[in-house]
Amino acid sequence: MDVVAEVEAAERRIRPHVRETPLVAAADSGAADMRLFYKCENLQATGSFKARGALSKLLSLSGGEIGRGIVTASTGNHGAATAFAARRVGARAIVYVPEGASPAKLAAIERLGGEIRRHGVDSVESELKARAVAEETGAVFVSPYNDPQVVGGQGTIGVELARALDRFDVVYVAVGGGGLIGGIAGWLKARRPATRIVGVQPENSQVMRQSVLAGRMLELPSLPTLSDGTAGGVELDTVTFPLVRDRVDEIITVTEDEIVAAMRGFMAVEHMMIEGAAGAALAGMARQRASLAGRTAVVVLCGANIALDKLKAILP
Amino acid sequence: MDVVAEVEAAERRIRPHVRETPLVAAADSGAADMRLFYKCENLQATGSFKARGALSKLLSLSGGEIGRGIVTASTGNHGAATAFAARRVGARAIVYVPEGASPAKLAAIERLGGEIRRHGVDSVESELKARAVAEETGAVFVSPYNDPQVVGGQGTIGVELARALDRFDVVYVAVGGGGLIGGIAGWLKARRPATRIVGVQPENSQVMRQSVLAGRMLELPSLPTLSDGTAGGVELDTVTFPLVRDRVDEIITVTEDEIVAAMRGFMAVEHMMIEGAAGAALAGMARQRASLAGRTAVVVLCGANIALDKLKAILP
Repeated sequence: MDVVAEVEAAERRIRPHVRETPLVAAADSGAADMRLFYKCENLQATGSFKARGALSKLLSLSGGEIGRGIVTASTGNHGAATAFAARRVGARAIVYVPEGASPAKLAAIERLGGEIRRHGVDSVESELKARAVAEETGAVFVSPYNDPQVVGGQGTIGVELARALDRFDVVYVAVGGGGLIGGIAGWLKARRPATRIVGVQPENSQVMRQSVLAGRMLELPSLPTLSDGTAGGVELDTVTFPLVRDRVDEIITVTEDEIVAAMRGFMAVEHMMIEGAAGAALAGMARQRASLAGRTAVVVLCGANIALDKLKAILP
Repeated sequence: MDVVAEVEAAERRIRPHVRETPLVAAADSGAADMRLFYKCENLQATGSFKARGALSKLLSLSGGEIGRGIVTASTGNHGAATAFAARRVGARAIVYVPEGASPAKLAAIERLGGEIRRHGVDSVESELKARAVAEETGAVFVSPYNDPQVVGGQGTIGVELARALDRFDVVYVAVGGGGLIGGIAGWLKARRPATRIVGVQPENSQVMRQSVLAGRMLELPSLPTLSDGTAGGVELDTVTFPLVRDRVDEIITVTEDEIVAAMRGFMAVEHMMIEGAAGAALAGMARQRASLAGRTAVVVLCGANIALDKLKAILP
């Protein structure tokens, strides 16, 4: 895929529909020996960056495709984002979720107009069903990351960073399927080639990191992680793999304890709610803090969607 | 005081220095029989609206006054806001706090460049000391609410509301010393006279409400409340009293349970952190929810500064 062209086409499509989220200087940035900024996708519509990719995809569809409707599978941010984008383009959105998915998360999808269908015992089964239904009915299946238009949408964060800051040296991004970091790195490496792009994965679920080290996408198990938005397996044919392999400088891992510490420290000082994947990106920055003297770093806070019981569990 | 002139002068002074905070449609607004917006002062610089009033005051000072420095007393949002504003105008800010004030709150003031002085066992004693020091040294004492320029600064929220929305019927605002609601009501009743302004106080601390009912400022005891930003006594000569008495349509009270329920419900759906006083305003709106059909309401989310242990205690 031509990622720069995809990002720039997405930028034109989605601009009236997404928030240009704030780039906030860290509260202790002034006293430190570096400049640190947070890109606040926690304040994006639907509470995460996923609104960008879903809008980019749905706004690229023909009237006929929109008429046949949208199908996806996700209990999380991507499901809410797809429902949100479908409402914007006037499409029906059916969202497959596993039996037993969290009612709070389903409520968010329904509030945005998505129609919930329960199928299967886990996300693999519900996704297979969603793909089969799309195949049968002619509806458009929207992947959370394995889609050029979706990746292009996420990459508009890079465009906004370049608009907001004359110079930045390093960007920290949590990595799951690679859509977010692939879009950002794909665009920045072309337009701001001196920028270092650091991916962050939880030690407990590092499929993309191990795959890049191996030179090909691997099927690997994952352990539970607070960074649930980046957890789990990745499709073997994903369009994001070459992007992440070629344009991301390194992918580092962080422990669950590091994620908790980063989230606590951030919330105590900045008073914004963030989800675990944003905590992973913060923890990655903290790991490399000593190397950042004199530099300008950006941490992408990818979303705010943390369940209140999880939030409670990590508070001191 | 000529509150409209004060607000409009403050608007000119502070505009380059404050954030025009987002006015966000409530996530479930679409499905409801009303329109509901949140004015997100939780996303204001320093994490609360207090930055507006402190900037308004400090930007109104002469060079000589700035040279003699700023003194205030507050462990909370006003202390941080005064330190923030002082840095902007190049003044030294000394902030008196009681012995035993929470280290997390003091850290926020120090991060912003404020100099902490510990004095006395409670906020009354530390404020008396701050006023005495200002008197002795010629420094400027900055009151959190009993000051026309401070009230004018808080009122710029009304200006932003009028800029963002063609029409709104009701605004809910938490009430402590009355600076926030006095500034907002003072300006809106002149420029958008059909707007209903509803003040909200916790049942546990309702000095301003009882004072308005009595027709004069009263000295009354308060019980502890989650809405700590609005708690406690109010100066008997406060400039805010006539404003609140004459321009606020009513002041209602909410219980601690209602505040907790409102904060939980908001955080679960909107994924933003808010402090107890913002929860009080939300709870006030919830109390009147049945009367809001067909109308447009705004809840002023006055700040985000909640200690993590308090946040933990209210989560389900």
